[in-house]
Amino acid sequence: MAGKRTDMIVHGTEPYNAEPPRGALMQSRLTALDTFYVRNHGPIPELDPARWRLEVGGLVSGELRLSLADLRAGFAELELDATLQCAGNRREGLIAVRAIPGEAPWGPGATGTARWGGVSLADVLESAGLAEEASHIEFIGGDVSPEAQPAQRFGASIPRRKALAGEVLLAWKMNGEPLPAAHGAPLRVVVPGYIGARSVKWLQRIVARTTSSENFFQARTYRLLPADADADAGLNGTGVPLGAVAVNADILTPDEGAEVQPGPLEVGGYAFAGDDRHVIRVDVSTTGGGAWSQAELIDAPSRWAWRRWRAQVTVAPGPVEIVARAWDSAAATQPEHPAQLWNPKGYANNAWARVSVRVAG
Amino acid sequence: MAGKRTDMIVHGTEPYNAEPPRGALMQSRLTALDTFYVRNHGPIPELDPARWRLEVGGLVSGELRLSLADLRAGFAELELDATLQCAGNRREGLIAVRAIPGEAPWGPGATGTARWGGVSLADVLESAGLAEEASHIEFIGGDVSPEAQPAQRFGASIPRRKALAGEVLLAWKMNGEPLPAAHGAPLRVVVPGYIGARSVKWLQRIVARTTSSENFFQARTYRLLPADADADAGLNGTGVPLGAVAVNADILTPDEGAEVQPGPLEVGGYAFAGDDRHVIRVDVSTTGGGAWSQAELIDAPSRWAWRRWRAQVTVAPGPVEIVARAWDSAAATQPEHPAQLWNPKGYANNAWARVSVRVAG
Repeated sequence: MAGKRTDMIVHGTEPYNAEPPRGALMQSRLTALDTFYVRNHGPIPELDPARWRLEVGGLVSGELRLSLADLRAGFAELELDATLQCAGNRREGLIAVRAIPGEAPWGPGATGTARWGGVSLADVLESAGLAEEASHIEFIGGDVSPEAQPAQRFGASIPRRKALAGEVLLAWKMNGEPLPAAHGAPLRVVVPGYIGARSVKWLQRIVARTTSSENFFQARTYRLLPADADADAGLNGTGVPLGAVAVNADILTPDEGAEVQPGPLEVGGYAFAGDDRHVIRVDVSTTGGGAWSQAELIDAPSRWAWRRWRAQVTVAPGPVEIVARAWDSAAATQPEHPAQLWNPKGYANNAWARVSVRVAG
Repeated sequence: MAGKRTDMIVHGTEPYNAEPPRGALMQSRLTALDTFYVRNHGPIPELDPARWRLEVGGLVSGELRLSLADLRAGFAELELDATLQCAGNRREGLIAVRAIPGEAPWGPGATGTARWGGVSLADVLESAGLAEEASHIEFIGGDVSPEAQPAQRFGASIPRRKALAGEVLLAWKMNGEPLPAAHGAPLRVVVPGYIGARSVKWLQRIVARTTSSENFFQARTYRLLPADADADAGLNGTGVPLGAVAVNADILTPDEGAEVQPGPLEVGGYAFAGDDRHVIRVDVSTTGGGAWSQAELIDAPSRWAWRRWRAQVTVAPGPVEIVARAWDSAAATQPEHPAQLWNPKGYANNAWARVSVRVAG
């Protein structure tokens, strides 16, 4: 796809779904635009920014219809560094346990960090006069998804408390550049700390409601099911909608299957904890968790962005598995085995990161 | 101790530290006063409620000095059901991995749920005129702890955001009764979703600060250390202060080591997730996690209180280990092994719950 690096790992072309190779995410705290993963559920809609309008309705005292110029003129512009992580990030680890038909085998690259620029959703809702009884804020995008049952525009909702907390953005800038079409231009939602699916792209309508959205992608899928449920159980309302993201980490370098020299080896990766939590520590092991050493956290603590980390381990000739795990500010750490996290749609794999290398003899 | 059931498991008498037996916590959603665990760091101070005053100072525009009557008259009284959980709850599971000298071997009873009655900390801070630059709110109790270095009154602090969120109470009632002396009378803090140590008892002073408290129990202990750190490393500022509580659960019935009949067996317990999270599911296994079934959640969802659960399993003659784990609203679940969570002070064990029974042949 135009605007994306040629070595993207492409999981689908219609719609385009792709993630960067591991090492590419290690290059910088903010993920380059050409490297940022793309998770689309339908074709990219062609929206003319000059004619595009954002509608704000539902349980508000005054409906709004805003152009981009209205948003710029009417509200304080702000920037915020936030990591987005797809609910399917690291699904390949679950698929290795048991097949998950119909879902893409995302590696650790279905996440990225950008500096988002725009206005605060809370400010726009205040301007519209949000009613007391509005418990959920719904977002409707401009992309029609053929996979939805029935086919419909992509949508989502978040609780009022999150919507008003100030960190949720309506963004038209990404890393200081105009938001690319693949990432939701002219305007997208950015819900820091929540699964990527709530950060609706090509935003067209905001609706204040008493209940969560009935959109397919909020009410029927992106739900956590127990392992013994049918994969379609979410269609009947089984399971629980995903929202905040649990502590997670992966290894970005060395690459899986790499050949390395014996002796000191630098290991690097990312760690992230959603919503009100942040990463406090990352542990690395070359003994399957028998002994851990603490990684150096490269990036400063950040409310909404990942922290990259690095550690030096020593490896001897032969096959070596490198393991990593993060801890968050609630002293929560990652579970050991993806087998214990397997679920029929393959969401929210936050098992220990594992990369196998061959050390030359 | 007067006011406590005779079968409390007593970890110390000076100061008194005790937890109820497993089954006692299963009796009701709100834990009876005589059953609620007690975690004290010093002798219970004798405070005359008539002469007692709460001081509010530091970065406020107007210092306050309030009697109980002032609190009742000046602020809206409210009640809130909240679970408190000691950071050392379930430490016995860590001690089984490796000794933790000097720390009590708490079982799963260092937690309980009460209906707390009092006023909102946020209201009191607003009345005092909290300064913008006050990032932390410190609480100082009336109990002098000889174990602190140097000996000092028990204290703690919480971030401004939590202090102003509305759920933090200054409480003088517990389950509709006057707050008992062992639980902090005349007034205690209740910080829902945080480790119990932040809910300072026998409250005497609230201080608005730019930094977190330098009190021994905030700055030197109740810190999460890596497994390879010295147990005293926290004294030098190593590790990270504990705050919000990660998802946790334990089995309350049957009791550890119980003899049961073959066939259907009812299993029950609690599950809790701190701060902005709630319990969405509990799984039970009699095959060490090889297969899980979902428990029935007895208690309705609650923002700040645990959810008790029950499940029926089928057991055949011989030794059987029952395993349980909870999931929270961020799709986080509990790690499998306490060995992977061991830390030098024995805090925050949220590994899978395990109870072994003998099934008659």
